[in-house]
Amino acid sequence: MSLLTVGTVAFDAIETPFGKTDKIVGGAATYIAWSASYFSKKVNIVSVIGDDFDMNELAELRKRGVDTTGIEVKEGKKSFFWSGKYHLDMNTRDTLITDLNVLLEFNPQIPAAYQGSDILLLGNIDPNLQLNVLNQLTTKPKLTILDTMNFWMTPSYKEKLLEVISKIDVLTINDAEARELSNEYSLVKAAKKILSMGPEYLVIKKGEHGALLFHENNVFFAPALPLEEVFDPTGAGDTFAGGFAGYLDKTRDISFENMKRAIIYGSAMASFCVEKFGAERLRELTHNDIEDRVKDFIDLVQFDIVLQD
Amino acid sequence: MSLLTVGTVAFDAIETPFGKTDKIVGGAATYIAWSASYFSKKVNIVSVIGDDFDMNELAELRKRGVDTTGIEVKEGKKSFFWSGKYHLDMNTRDTLITDLNVLLEFNPQIPAAYQGSDILLLGNIDPNLQLNVLNQLTTKPKLTILDTMNFWMTPSYKEKLLEVISKIDVLTINDAEARELSNEYSLVKAAKKILSMGPEYLVIKKGEHGALLFHENNVFFAPALPLEEVFDPTGAGDTFAGGFAGYLDKTRDISFENMKRAIIYGSAMASFCVEKFGAERLRELTHNDIEDRVKDFIDLVQFDIVLQD
Repeated sequence: MSLLTVGTVAFDAIETPFGKTDKIVGGAATYIAWSASYFSKKVNIVSVIGDDFDMNELAELRKRGVDTTGIEVKEGKKSFFWSGKYHLDMNTRDTLITDLNVLLEFNPQIPAAYQGSDILLLGNIDPNLQLNVLNQLTTKPKLTILDTMNFWMTPSYKEKLLEVISKIDVLTINDAEARELSNEYSLVKAAKKILSMGPEYLVIKKGEHGALLFHENNVFFAPALPLEEVFDPTGAGDTFAGGFAGYLDKTRDISFENMKRAIIYGSAMASFCVEKFGAERLRELTHNDIEDRVKDFIDLVQFDIVLQD
Repeated sequence: MSLLTVGTVAFDAIETPFGKTDKIVGGAATYIAWSASYFSKKVNIVSVIGDDFDMNELAELRKRGVDTTGIEVKEGKKSFFWSGKYHLDMNTRDTLITDLNVLLEFNPQIPAAYQGSDILLLGNIDPNLQLNVLNQLTTKPKLTILDTMNFWMTPSYKEKLLEVISKIDVLTINDAEARELSNEYSLVKAAKKILSMGPEYLVIKKGEHGALLFHENNVFFAPALPLEEVFDPTGAGDTFAGGFAGYLDKTRDISFENMKRAIIYGSAMASFCVEKFGAERLRELTHNDIEDRVKDFIDLVQFDIVLQD
């Protein structure tokens, strides 16, 4: 089984109340690939970087079964760079620098060897590029998951975003974005409207408050693990998506019941991500670590009520 | 089994984006009593009202097995009155009027017939009065639950609040209050500090984001039900506490496992409360309604993962 993801591979410089980093490797596709690599046998990345990138980072990903041939290297150009500073509550941040660099010319090309990937996870990029990727695929993936953000809900992009949303199976957005996209405050009403736009499934990410999965008239809620310390939330949403997609790929089952499990595994991966800067924690996990963390989720929500009918 | 609660019985006037009420019956002890009456055989209230109160309201409570002899009626005085207006998001509100009236002279007296109540639920009032109640009890209840709020965490009251907290078994507060009381942002760290202040159990209410139960090194999370519409959140926290305490009283089991169940039942009762103005919805429930709602909670969080060890 294989997972194809299209998204950014970038440099980040992050400042939190706990410390700050120099340029470290970030970008949605990086977090997705590291996270999914614990589940998927093969993760295919399509992205773009400059020749300033540390190519050892790609070698590290290849060691984990990630195919990086779809990462275009632009000679003489610089990689996408983002810098941000988190506030004390870790829920809000200021963007200090956004240097799009190579991202301005990103025109994703799907290598022939990536055709036939079972699951497609479109990371948060311009919906025009997401559509472009969909149009290049010779076989429809078994499942297409799309991540996006509020920036693409503005008038210049909204029409394209709605077009791509109408073509995918699972949409993942946060609660503020769900409200903005639907113009409904109630997440239940928002979900109904968004599901009517095309997707079979909607995942609403609520950060420290967990995640909701909507499908037809069903709803599933997965908590976030209450943590002593959130060290750096950067990439947690992408790590969640990578774990979610990777688990679905590994288990070859895209039923609602299995999506619930995938959300728990994605949440477990995200809970590791925030423990260290960037994707550092995602490089050192064992399968036992992941199973132990999933057990924490089970313990967190498990109760035993026998209903009297 | 019996439940003793001490708290306000009041008039409220509520305005929400959906409409507004004239003076309707409110107050923590009202919500607690209605909610607990679906579980406890006997609910004993201690409170104070003026002679402007609608005595039929007390008769309604008595029909449900609530003993109202501990509600002192002050002749020629007015009942406590609160008026508030909710913002569009329903999470924030402005207080328009607070007329303490009889509450200024509230000096709770525990009737002899209330001695020996199995569970004591101290509603949110001045910690001096909460201590006064504890001192009047001739037998220690099997479980003492205390609700409070940020107002009592200010310098004038904090010492007394800490004294009463050191004497009770279960503390229920919201997330902002837990952070204020502990001076810790992380709820896990906050819970550790608060448990070291005396209580065996801490319930942190997060409104639409659910509730956490902490005990020793264990934590349990109960979601709030995602609702299409929150019509009026007034009293939801008290309704939660009433259902929680009532369920523990009915089942005669104060273990951690049973507290988890009690939190689910409390959350179910709170989910009804917000569907109509004030305590209206709590007057018309059947046991089937409650069991159906608890089933919704089970469906919401239930997943089935077999760990590979």
